[in-house]
Amino acid sequence: MKLVMHPDRLFPADTTTRDIARRLYGQIKDLPIISPHGHTDPSWFAENKPFENPSALLLQPDHYLLRMLYSQGIPLEAMGIRRRDGGDVESDPKKIWQLFAEHYYLFRGTPTRMWLDHVFSEVFNLDEALTADTAESYYEHINSCLQQPEFLPRALFERFNIEVIATTESPLDDLRHHQAIKDSGWQGRVITAFRPDPVMDPEHDGFVSNLKQLANITGEDTQTFSGYLAALKKRREFFKSMGATSTDHGHPTAVTADLTRAESEQLFAGALKGELTPQQAELFRGQMLTEMALMSLDDGLIMQIHPGCHRNHNQSLFENFGRDKGADLPVATEYISALKPLLNKLGNDPRFNLIVFTLDETAYSRELAPLAGHYPAMKVGPAWWFHDSPEGMRRYREQITETAGFYNTVGFNDDTRAFLSIPARHDVARRMDCTFLAQLVAEHRITEEEAAEIAYDLTYRLAKQAYKL
Amino acid sequence: MKLVMHPDRLFPADTTTRDIARRLYGQIKDLPIISPHGHTDPSWFAENKPFENPSALLLQPDHYLLRMLYSQGIPLEAMGIRRRDGGDVESDPKKIWQLFAEHYYLFRGTPTRMWLDHVFSEVFNLDEALTADTAESYYEHINSCLQQPEFLPRALFERFNIEVIATTESPLDDLRHHQAIKDSGWQGRVITAFRPDPVMDPEHDGFVSNLKQLANITGEDTQTFSGYLAALKKRREFFKSMGATSTDHGHPTAVTADLTRAESEQLFAGALKGELTPQQAELFRGQMLTEMALMSLDDGLIMQIHPGCHRNHNQSLFENFGRDKGADLPVATEYISALKPLLNKLGNDPRFNLIVFTLDETAYSRELAPLAGHYPAMKVGPAWWFHDSPEGMRRYREQITETAGFYNTVGFNDDTRAFLSIPARHDVARRMDCTFLAQLVAEHRITEEEAAEIAYDLTYRLAKQAYKL
Amino acid sequence: MKLVMHPDRLFPADTTTRDIARRLYGQIKDLPIISPHGHTDPSWFAENKPFENPSALLLQPDHYLLRMLYSQGIPLEAMGIRRRDGGDVESDPKKIWQLFAEHYYLFRGTPTRMWLDHVFSEVFNLDEALTADTAESYYEHINSCLQQPEFLPRALFERFNIEVIATTESPLDDLRHHQAIKDSGWQGRVITAFRPDPVMDPEHDGFVSNLKQLANITGEDTQTFSGYLAALKKRREFFKSMGATSTDHGHPTAVTADLTRAESEQLFAGALKGELTPQQAELFRGQMLTEMALMSLDDGLIMQIHPGCHRNHNQSLFENFGRDKGADLPVATEYISALKPLLNKLGNDPRFNLIVFTLDETAYSRELAPLAGHYPAMKVGPAWWFHDSPEGMRRYREQITETAGFYNTVGFNDDTRAFLSIPARHDVARRMDCTFLAQLVAEHRITEEEAAEIAYDLTYRLAKQAYKL
Repeated sequence: MKLVMHPDRLFPADTTTRDIARRLYGQIKDLPIISPHGHTDPSWFAENKPFENPSALLLQPDHYLLRMLYSQGIPLEAMGIRRRDGGDVESDPKKIWQLFAEHYYLFRGTPTRMWLDHVFSEVFNLDEALTADTAESYYEHINSCLQQPEFLPRALFERFNIEVIATTESPLDDLRHHQAIKDSGWQGRVITAFRPDPVMDPEHDGFVSNLKQLANITGEDTQTFSGYLAALKKRREFFKSMGATSTDHGHPTAVTADLTRAESEQLFAGALKGELTPQQAELFRGQMLTEMALMSLDDGLIMQIHPGCHRNHNQSLFENFGRDKGADLPVATEYISALKPLLNKLGNDPRFNLIVFTLDETAYSRELAPLAGHYPAMKVGPAWWFHDSPEGMRRYREQITETAGFYNTVGFNDDTRAFLSIPARHDVARRMDCTFLAQLVAEHRITEEEAAEIAYDLTYRLAKQAYKL
Repeated sequence: MKLVMHPDRLFPADTTTRDIARRLYGQIKDLPIISPHGHTDPSWFAENKPFENPSALLLQPDHYLLRMLYSQGIPLEAMGIRRRDGGDVESDPKKIWQLFAEHYYLFRGTPTRMWLDHVFSEVFNLDEALTADTAESYYEHINSCLQQPEFLPRALFERFNIEVIATTESPLDDLRHHQAIKDSGWQGRVITAFRPDPVMDPEHDGFVSNLKQLANITGEDTQTFSGYLAALKKRREFFKSMGATSTDHGHPTAVTADLTRAESEQLFAGALKGELTPQQAELFRGQMLTEMALMSLDDGLIMQIHPGCHRNHNQSLFENFGRDKGADLPVATEYISALKPLLNKLGNDPRFNLIVFTLDETAYSRELAPLAGHYPAMKVGPAWWFHDSPEGMRRYREQITETAGFYNTVGFNDDTRAFLSIPARHDVARRMDCTFLAQLVAEHRITEEEAAEIAYDLTYRLAKQAYKL
Repeated sequence: MKLVMHPDRLFPADTTTRDIARRLYGQIKDLPIISPHGHTDPSWFAENKPFENPSALLLQPDHYLLRMLYSQGIPLEAMGIRRRDGGDVESDPKKIWQLFAEHYYLFRGTPTRMWLDHVFSEVFNLDEALTADTAESYYEHINSCLQQPEFLPRALFERFNIEVIATTESPLDDLRHHQAIKDSGWQGRVITAFRPDPVMDPEHDGFVSNLKQLANITGEDTQTFSGYLAALKKRREFFKSMGATSTDHGHPTAVTADLTRAESEQLFAGALKGELTPQQAELFRGQMLTEMALMSLDDGLIMQIHPGCHRNHNQSLFENFGRDKGADLPVATEYISALKPLLNKLGNDPRFNLIVFTLDETAYSRELAPLAGHYPAMKVGPAWWFHDSPEGMRRYREQITETAGFYNTVGFNDDTRAFLSIPARHDVARRMDCTFLAQLVAEHRITEEEAAEIAYDLTYRLAKQAYKL
């Protein structure tokens, strides 16, 4: 069976609309990739070593893929995922690849299938579909590619035409890989982003010890609220000096707060003792978002809030394999009341920049578009995670645009650690945006000239502007 | 750049479906406008004076427009919106128009853009697009039009082919403008609607003093619950005598109640003293909906409930500029439990007529269509406010029709104070309904003959029937 | 007016996509019907007597139809629905049929219209549309058909090409009709399903007396929790021996629990005394789901959860006419927290099989697809009840597939007591699945070869596999 990446893929079948979509896409498909939010490993670009093997590179780190296989009865052990207890797992990457290939049909109709086919075709130049029969030749071909210089991380970065990519690090990270990239003289722009959840969430494992480490790194007394804030401020400055232009906050809810200093100090004291109720912990996290926002007025870092995920829902899986194995699940998420304290304090301040995401699509037309369509400080982040898909993107534009327009959105985030799929993901976003715009043109709602301008903005300009890149 | 209002705008690109949509639209596009719910100013029609200037007419009163501009950093002062503290604001309407024109691109993909282009093209006969370059000539052209007799309010009313329009007034309003219209002998049908929130919501600013005023107007003792009800009944009768066929209730939630007289009186006493908790205030409003419904059995006024809006979310904006400046936001809204007390009391009564709206689209298929598709008293109002848009209307029909059919809906509401955009708004609704019907025909789900009948009903008959016009 | 069941009905108007849909449909349209969840009356197949008359067969038992007529002011009395007080109702089935025909236009755009037209055309070979004018000839024609042998229940079962159909019975049912079918030697496969709500829901009318009856049937002491569980286990075994492969649970919410034995016994004691608070009753039901799941590890019955319905919302209608008259309404339903206790206990167990349904479509992409796309035990049931419709099915596929794929779904359920509409309902599902797949093919997201395989799976294989048929 041929593997065909059709040049019209994702474009509508209607010929009038498809022709417009083609023309729009033709003008933006080769623009550089702006990747302002993601999870690639900076050591790849620092060390520039060959990737290990096809399974370790493409399968094992991808929680989209593990979750689907697991849902259909394939144990994580069979995919070679390390058990915390050191128990036996499959260690032969070829067997893992073969098992995956046999179940590749499960991904029909999912973005994972589109992304991987794109990687196979465009990155590795394969032209037969992945099946049980072709699995072995796939493995050998990809594996031999990975040993060649043009498949080293930096070479791929350049081939992918990435203008800038952001990784995500904890304030406790020393950013040595980012430093090594800087020192290397390589011109690829790999920046960090400041993700303080481990030192801002009192319910995070190791919150207390993380604060001690934060004290060691910064020389501040993190046992007092003022020392704690000073320490965070210092780390923000350090991250900024390493290229960061944004912070990122993955809280369970979008709750923010605007407490008095005394109230904040009292919650902080409780957090240090591990004595906060869940409600108090939520309030503390909410207050800390406001503290971060206040710091952003000075250092100019963009604030991203990614709420609404129930992490590690599957307890035994978590105990056996740890985090990020596909058992994180969306929950209904409220924004109007939750963001009010923060927006009432800073939402009208031209120095504050907030980008809000959701896993709850009902918020698009009901809450996020109305909020972003009013507050100067706030923009809506792109379709995220479970919704980073053709239909997810279609719903996003259909439900956001009429209230918030295009200019209160911020372009695309790939949000991935699957480095090789980055061009595929951006390509899907570009095609779906052109499809949406083509429909507006075909229905005489905007002109094609306007659509071309918007396509450029959505692909390139808005991300650079929103993230100050 | 030409300003083209394409004759096929909003119709689907697929030629089969588009041809059907065209034929359906051709049969209903010239039907008179029925506008049973809106916010135009009756003094326009009473006094029939020229509108002031393009900015005062088209820009400054439009909260859709202010919210988008504000979200992109344009201060309301620059749009000439009066500050409560009397502080400086832009006073030159030409400068305001120019600023708006420079940012008109922000509205791409929004209904505001469609409405305004329609106004420019169809009302003012402009044929170039509004840009920074054409702003001045636009202003001059529109401004000179406004001085001409054919652009006076009554002339436009007639040109727009409005069969009847409802305004909205408080029970404290003396309806002098409606009286003046009656007295003038002009044949345009401008009726009022009874909006008692200021005297029914204990959390409304000035509730207590409003009740005193209500006493003065009616001669009833509004310090007792029975006097209060009697006063409301009298005002309903007065409004009815001035043409009203409906009441309108803009509560934060859809909560209704069915309390004993003693419980109601106790809440009323608390309301008079300003001592109700938020929960009690909600319960009182809920009970008053039921009281209004009971009165409607006698006077026959249709009841409209418009719930689910968080008003004045932006506190500093509210303090500086007051209400209705684009900072009202939708919230998740529950209907099944909320409406149960009212529907259990009166939902089976053929004398009771209830029209329910939502800003929370998740209620369409889950709650509103199932309720309206069962209770004889209840119908679903059209796509409202943030959802008064092509995609909003498409979702409305797709999510309502299969459970409630077409005949438990009530036609279109423009709900606007932007008088000149009324034909544009009705035209969008007519086109989107024809588009939806054309798809049903093209997919052989109904016949074209049926579709034509439904298109007529949705455009004209259902609104007249539901609002007793 | 001709009644035309167009061969392309429900297929998209775009010719490219329609041609693909036609080809896909052509390959699966004649596959046998698998009906794993429904409410037909087993006595029909046991006794194989002629159906009574057109109104009794097609109108009076159909709550979809009653609700729409009722919403437009037609009293249930006029439809001949028996009143509990024995009050007068229409007794002439011809008059009932005429009244219905006069209001058949109300169903335009609803699935009821499609289903009935299909029945009229395909089952009764009628070729004129049902109107007031044709009502009488319709009635006579259908009535005379019903007297003929080829319209007896078993003949229709065979003509409909039903491979297997499940009915639904209470644990208190003796399954005599199923026994009679077995004994008759007829080859039609009619199986039961175990629906224990009447003996598992402490808020069910007659819970206490139902438990006494359960004791009588099983010889177990249902006044102790262990005896109660033993009794349920016995009835599950009996149902299994009569062909059951599944249990079905229609709780108000999706709440599950994982209590200690002592806690369960305490709740059970309270339930017996009728002393549980609503919260405790919910917890008890939730615990009983887990108990049922535990039993399923041994007997292998599939578990179905159908939550989120507010039953008998219209109190006076319920008092006058009883259950299932069209006054059941969906409510917002949460799954992530609700199912956690059950999924944490058994979600990873390969012996456990759970199918979850929803009336709250917001759960598709936010909760159900993510859950089913992770837990090996769980699959998502098809678009249900209010969403068993073309647009409902479209939204289902669009919102489920990208996260859960096709293989975490379970084919179609007709869920109906309207026996004659079963082929119509499956046909709508087949057409809508082919339409969805055709779009994926036309947009080059899957190959047509894959789509054909998926169409077969969705129509036939997945239902058989998920329900072990």
